[in-house]
Amino acid sequence: MARTQGSHSDITGPKVREAALRLFARHGYAAVSMRQIAGEVGVQAGALYNYTPDKQSLLMDLMKGHMDELIAAWEHQSSARDPMAALEQFTRFHIRFHSKRPEAVFISYMELRNLNPENFIVIEALRRTYEDVLADILRAGVNKGEFSVPEPKVAAMAVIAMLTGVNTWYRDEGRLSLAQVEEIYWGMVRKTVAA
Amino acid sequence: MARTQGSHSDITGPKVREAALRLFARHGYAAVSMRQIAGEVGVQAGALYNYTPDKQSLLMDLMKGHMDELIAAWEHQSSARDPMAALEQFTRFHIRFHSKRPEAVFISYMELRNLNPENFIVIEALRRTYEDVLADILRAGVNKGEFSVPEPKVAAMAVIAMLTGVNTWYRDEGRLSLAQVEEIYWGMVRKTVAA
Repeated sequence: MARTQGSHSDITGPKVREAALRLFARHGYAAVSMRQIAGEVGVQAGALYNYTPDKQSLLMDLMKGHMDELIAAWEHQSSARDPMAALEQFTRFHIRFHSKRPEAVFISYMELRNLNPENFIVIEALRRTYEDVLADILRAGVNKGEFSVPEPKVAAMAVIAMLTGVNTWYRDEGRLSLAQVEEIYWGMVRKTVAA
Repeated sequence: MARTQGSHSDITGPKVREAALRLFARHGYAAVSMRQIAGEVGVQAGALYNYTPDKQSLLMDLMKGHMDELIAAWEHQSSARDPMAALEQFTRFHIRFHSKRPEAVFISYMELRNLNPENFIVIEALRRTYEDVLADILRAGVNKGEFSVPEPKVAAMAVIAMLTGVNTWYRDEGRLSLAQVEEIYWGMVRKTVAA
């Protein structure tokens, strides 16, 4: 019986997160009820509490899950030791990773306001960890004399904002392929930090 | 009597918009009721309909007002004919204008999803108008041989995303003054489009 219960939970847990992600992105966290999420999943409202204690936990799961995945994916694929090569890798990685997750990216920026204070601190720390990845690449390039970046942390936030901005306009069916977009942005990022 | 009514409306209209801006930015459009907005203004819910026909009109007023103000402010202060000088002016203007209006900027990006289709078309057109200001500066610089920008429209969106990103981290009480932030970003923008 425990096994059946476990399997059921394994299937429904992701469904609950997917439904919450979709509804939060569409209507905003504050406008979505646990009842609506249950309806989207196709379970009774009461059953939802087998999978999550409350709506705040669901939001935190989504936001922390997104940041954990982002940082793990970077660590998994990061290989370049040369600052210029690492910067190119980061640029292409960031665009690809975020373009595949428009709803999670949207929520990550928009719903910071709805995290409770303890959760906010955790998410802010994860964001800083990710920004520091890029800031460290920039510092390494400055030390090597290849980059000129007066404020590495500010430049990291500026480049990340530029790259995440792709999500506001890129469409798969558009004139430019994602590979072309990567190429254009890499050309700009390279110049932005050039010595 | 007409004069009294007019004066009263002149005072309450801006108060309604300010209250709606504050509440939409805090909770999201979908989670805010006309009753809440009335409560924030200090009038009866029914009285609100003297100032706005519905919540969608209020959202549209805020978003269109923000874009109209942005475009008018740029046209008012824009003076440089030289592309490099115009780009510097645009960079500093964009940071200053947006840093003073965090709630309006937040809503302008977040609540696009809640505009009805006719209103969405109007706002999209205004955004394109503003992006074209920068794209035209970039094209002029390319023609003069001062900038190298393979895709002026994409570069305009990239630079605007970078500059608007200041709002996500800049604080008046922080280490850097807004003047220093302008200087750092101008240094990056200049290089981003450099020939």
